[in-house]
Amino acid sequence: MTTSKKILSALFFGFIIISLITAQLLGVNTQSFADNSNSISTSYKTPKYIFMFIGDGMSHVQVNAAQVYTGNNESGKVALGELEFTQFPIAGMATTQDSTSFCPDSASTATSFASGVKTHSGVIGKKVDKTQDAKNITEIFKENGKKIGIISTVTINHATPAAYYAHAESRNQYYDIAIQMATSNIDYFAGGAINKPTGDKKDQKDAYEILAENEYTITKTKEDFAKLDKNSGKIYAQSPKLQDSGSMPYSIDYKSGDLKLSDFVRKGIEVLDNENGFFMMTESGKIDWACHANDAMSTIADTLELNEAVKVAKEFADKHPDETLIIVTGDHETGGLTIGQAYTGYDTAFNLLRNQKMSYVAFDDMIAEMKSNGQIKSLDDVMPIINQNFGLKAPSDGSSDSLAMTDYEYKKLQAGFEESMKEEEARTDNQEASIMYGGYDPLSVSLTHILNNKAGIGWTSYSHTGTPVPVFAYGAGAELFNGSYDNTDVFFKTLKAVGIR
Amino acid sequence: MTTSKKILSALFFGFIIISLITAQLLGVNTQSFADNSNSISTSYKTPKYIFMFIGDGMSHVQVNAAQVYTGNNESGKVALGELEFTQFPIAGMATTQDSTSFCPDSASTATSFASGVKTHSGVIGKKVDKTQDAKNITEIFKENGKKIGIISTVTINHATPAAYYAHAESRNQYYDIAIQMATSNIDYFAGGAINKPTGDKKDQKDAYEILAENEYTITKTKEDFAKLDKNSGKIYAQSPKLQDSGSMPYSIDYKSGDLKLSDFVRKGIEVLDNENGFFMMTESGKIDWACHANDAMSTIADTLELNEAVKVAKEFADKHPDETLIIVTGDHETGGLTIGQAYTGYDTAFNLLRNQKMSYVAFDDMIAEMKSNGQIKSLDDVMPIINQNFGLKAPSDGSSDSLAMTDYEYKKLQAGFEESMKEEEARTDNQEASIMYGGYDPLSVSLTHILNNKAGIGWTSYSHTGTPVPVFAYGAGAELFNGSYDNTDVFFKTLKAVGIR
Repeated sequence: MTTSKKILSALFFGFIIISLITAQLLGVNTQSFADNSNSISTSYKTPKYIFMFIGDGMSHVQVNAAQVYTGNNESGKVALGELEFTQFPIAGMATTQDSTSFCPDSASTATSFASGVKTHSGVIGKKVDKTQDAKNITEIFKENGKKIGIISTVTINHATPAAYYAHAESRNQYYDIAIQMATSNIDYFAGGAINKPTGDKKDQKDAYEILAENEYTITKTKEDFAKLDKNSGKIYAQSPKLQDSGSMPYSIDYKSGDLKLSDFVRKGIEVLDNENGFFMMTESGKIDWACHANDAMSTIADTLELNEAVKVAKEFADKHPDETLIIVTGDHETGGLTIGQAYTGYDTAFNLLRNQKMSYVAFDDMIAEMKSNGQIKSLDDVMPIINQNFGLKAPSDGSSDSLAMTDYEYKKLQAGFEESMKEEEARTDNQEASIMYGGYDPLSVSLTHILNNKAGIGWTSYSHTGTPVPVFAYGAGAELFNGSYDNTDVFFKTLKAVGIR
Repeated sequence: MTTSKKILSALFFGFIIISLITAQLLGVNTQSFADNSNSISTSYKTPKYIFMFIGDGMSHVQVNAAQVYTGNNESGKVALGELEFTQFPIAGMATTQDSTSFCPDSASTATSFASGVKTHSGVIGKKVDKTQDAKNITEIFKENGKKIGIISTVTINHATPAAYYAHAESRNQYYDIAIQMATSNIDYFAGGAINKPTGDKKDQKDAYEILAENEYTITKTKEDFAKLDKNSGKIYAQSPKLQDSGSMPYSIDYKSGDLKLSDFVRKGIEVLDNENGFFMMTESGKIDWACHANDAMSTIADTLELNEAVKVAKEFADKHPDETLIIVTGDHETGGLTIGQAYTGYDTAFNLLRNQKMSYVAFDDMIAEMKSNGQIKSLDDVMPIINQNFGLKAPSDGSSDSLAMTDYEYKKLQAGFEESMKEEEARTDNQEASIMYGGYDPLSVSLTHILNNKAGIGWTSYSHTGTPVPVFAYGAGAELFNGSYDNTDVFFKTLKAVGIR
């Protein structure tokens, strides 16, 4: 800035200050000066720390379901529970379609968030031609001197996290993506395992070895995790407990003392904090998986744990006011979840969901073990386990209990049980079966359908659906996220907040 | 304002103007002066004209469905169509639960919009005690000198319009509400008929007579409607054509030259315009009715006609910049509509909906006539009519046509046809039937289900569901509608925009 410009600048601020003092003396509000005129003015700082939370498969209804679950259903006093992020001052919405579908996938939508481009379903970090790499926000922030964290409850080379460090024509190139992970220089990976670390044919060099060669400190126990600090260099903190496909367990299946998503966020803050700040992407990936399986309670529990992770970020933000931006969004809706369904009409009874004690995955594992032990001859052998873990009772109980199945429901359960007892190859393969079970275990999916329906929850799909997603924001630059826009704009708004574009 | 205050005010504005000129000379943007600081500043005028559009039953998915329908489904180029209101610069979201249900009704939600209070499902313009009247926004604006218009595609004493002029413990007190309509002094009513104008027992004085006694000019023909102008006094312009329950016809059933919702809005502007401005509430009530019946095409067509009505308001707003506020929202979601469903997965084919030529209501009427004429002996007698009006073909056609039913779908259609041919009292009354047909005609609801599913559309309910609704806003004071809030806040934000509260 030239000297003359500096003088003019000083003059400008002088005027502003005098004007504001004058206004103060007058007890001004703008409206009193000019008829028919008001003003809303907000200023924001450039964030140094940026948290991006993605609830995979989490749209308005998933968020609302967690609010209904934690809310009050007493007639005359019905109220939604409040999550940390539903109380954020800023909320916008983003459209989700990708270049090939109105029901997009996580690869293309994460690419839109991470790189600001629309691309085909299944594509990671590449433009719509599937050839050119789309530069992603972690590459930009790296150049900007920031440290980067990538956390996910699912595998770290799964679509959503991958879009933040890799470029691949197909999300199924798990091994290629794992190699890109190893050479990414991302400062902190945490959460699930690496999927297919030795490739599709298990004949490649172990990706964990390659990570180690690239100077990553890899931890797989709680003790080693606890030792991680700012001096640990590049980190990959894998969850000590793993569940389906190398993901972290569903929150509903946590045991006391297990490392949770919020623990990985807390550690991320510890190891990433530096004078240039950081960008941390945290995905709760199994909100989506539970919705694919139409398991409402597991979805809600993971949404609530995502909220716990957001709380950790919020605490940090409140210690670093004007320096921290938190974004909480979803990439698309999954399952066609609705609060309300045909038979229960306007009534909901989400309290019934509290009878579910484990995820459909944990239940499937338990039933598989019983089956292989020859412990299951008929549905009656399983009913005590069903009652214990889903609360549901046979209609013959005769009670007017809200957990007693109707004859219609029991018939559905029996059909699901019979299908489930068949070898997978022998199961019915027609339109009706695909609508009834969607490729999931016919017993557990019947159980979640029955319990969910009783609670007043409907599902239409085992896939993703098309609808905008909410975008909640808090802190420095949050104002930019108000309004309605496309998911690619989340990328541009984030950069704008930081002043890069 | 005292003289000294006036001088100080002039001084203040002088400073601001000089400051801004200085800033202009410097090519200032705020960020260049102060590290880590940006500002977003907006000012708005106080609106003189306020348009409130309510799509009954219209939440994010209903809006998105109209965008998918008008969009591009070509692989690699998938894009949403844009509606007038989806392009509004402001979009927020409002939660919808009422004091008795997470799946609220139109009486309580319209009361929240109109009066800023939460109340019980079914209650019109009364507080949660069901006794005290909740003062509504038209009463407030009347005191403020504004003229008021109330337009609805359904009957004018139906829940949503009623909440803008009446107070009743139950929305079913149609006659009481009609009497309140007559004595409301609302300047312009338009749209559907009066439901039960002589009371439940048809033994009361005709509400139309009472309206006339209260000096309302009532028009029921296109010719009389055309003659209405500023000198017509208080007006009730009833749609010359009526359909189910005295509502305006579904948009899909319009004939060329029929009066549409947009015509009633245009006339409203003409007759209401005055120096104190006006408040006009326009409801598209049959978006909800079509969703109750799970008829996607009729819902989309009515959403697009609502958009046409919004365009009329937008044209007016652009002629009266800084004086006009337009709000477009829904009161709750209906039907559990989803874009995507179990069998079609990630695929959608909304183009198939173009084969639907009439609403389920018009189809029901046609079938009822054929039935009473003894023209229907078997499903084969109806198949040509089905093909003509829904495009669907029997599987025996053998074609790979996307409109040929699968065996599963045809079985569903046959079951629906057989149920439909029974006398209403003889129809199956069990849980399965209530889930399959929801009390609608089993033939037409089977047809819309099959066509909708083929298009990639799912439904979970015949009732309302719980999820927030979008709130789009344009013009003076629109900025107040950004963010996430409760539906009661729509009332408070509207008053704040006008500077009343």
